[in-house]
Amino acid sequence: MTTISILGQGNMGSTIAALVEKAGHTVEAFDSSTADKPVTGDVVVLAVPHPAVAEILAQRSDQLAGKVVVDITNPLDYQTGALTVPADSSSAAQIAQALPTARVLKAFNTNFGPTLAAGTVGDQPTTVLIAGDDDDAKAQLAEIVTASGLKAADVGPLARARELESLALLQIGLAMSGKTSMTGGFALHS
Amino acid sequence: MTTISILGQGNMGSTIAALVEKAGHTVEAFDSSTADKPVTGDVVVLAVPHPAVAEILAQRSDQLAGKVVVDITNPLDYQTGALTVPADSSSAAQIAQALPTARVLKAFNTNFGPTLAAGTVGDQPTTVLIAGDDDDAKAQLAEIVTASGLKAADVGPLARARELESLALLQIGLAMSGKTSMTGGFALHS
Repeated sequence: MTTISILGQGNMGSTIAALVEKAGHTVEAFDSSTADKPVTGDVVVLAVPHPAVAEILAQRSDQLAGKVVVDITNPLDYQTGALTVPADSSSAAQIAQALPTARVLKAFNTNFGPTLAAGTVGDQPTTVLIAGDDDDAKAQLAEIVTASGLKAADVGPLARARELESLALLQIGLAMSGKTSMTGGFALHS
Repeated sequence: MTTISILGQGNMGSTIAALVEKAGHTVEAFDSSTADKPVTGDVVVLAVPHPAVAEILAQRSDQLAGKVVVDITNPLDYQTGALTVPADSSSAAQIAQALPTARVLKAFNTNFGPTLAAGTVGDQPTTVLIAGDDDDAKAQLAEIVTASGLKAADVGPLARARELESLALLQIGLAMSGKTSMTGGFALHS
């Protein structure tokens, strides 16, 4: 049994916490009232809005050293509809640069919360797409995801986080313009 | 009835030609043996491998002036699994730069050929994602797509071509690693 520290108890944080418990693992929960509580889990999920990541890195970089750090954030400018990170980077790449000993994964950012909770996108099983450079870390997260009843798919190295953030940008734009919904989006079919 | 010029008669070109005819429009077909035949359609589909685009632009830029030019290509390096265009650009953006009076659209690049032919991704209707800066051109292509029996979704300005090419990169990578197939991939669910 692994302890998963989840920073952020909003829609995504609480949904991922429920998945972790369903998978038989232990949740250690953090929100803005627990800034002084140290992170002790082996896997840490950054389930906060993207602009809140910088403060977490500033406050907790020592606690995150060596851990599997899962970035679920989408660095979107909702005014321009574009990504806010440099074109050759990603939120996950920036986190990996700030945490050189952490094993950073990008995951969950292409999943709308309701599709994680329901386990389906439309009539299809929900697939969590995972990018990262550490195969053991990816396998550990994929095990948690599949034990919770969802599907997991490894999309490659952490460099692919850029494309995962791009996919989320398209999907959020389609939802905001009414062409899909928060219970829909892109499903990966076999 | 519109004449659609389709450059390239491979898998994608012949499949899109069949869709155009099903939609009740006229196809003007080009392949490597018809380099001297001028393009006369109102809509021109670049259904060639990405590396062949440069030669078409060099030979036919005058013929393409003012037309709706549909870029379906994916600028992928299959060795590295990454995009070959600069991080802040896209194949479609480069074509638009080379053809300043053309109304360039990105479309079909996120659809595997068999899903265009079958009209389905798994058990879902196939959706053609379209990006472009000219709303009339997007509406014209969307009309052709929907008249052929498929669904169309406008994902925004031509700047979103970068994200469409990123989505294709992920999807092709998932197919090459056996996590999806050419009859599957990402389907847009409502």
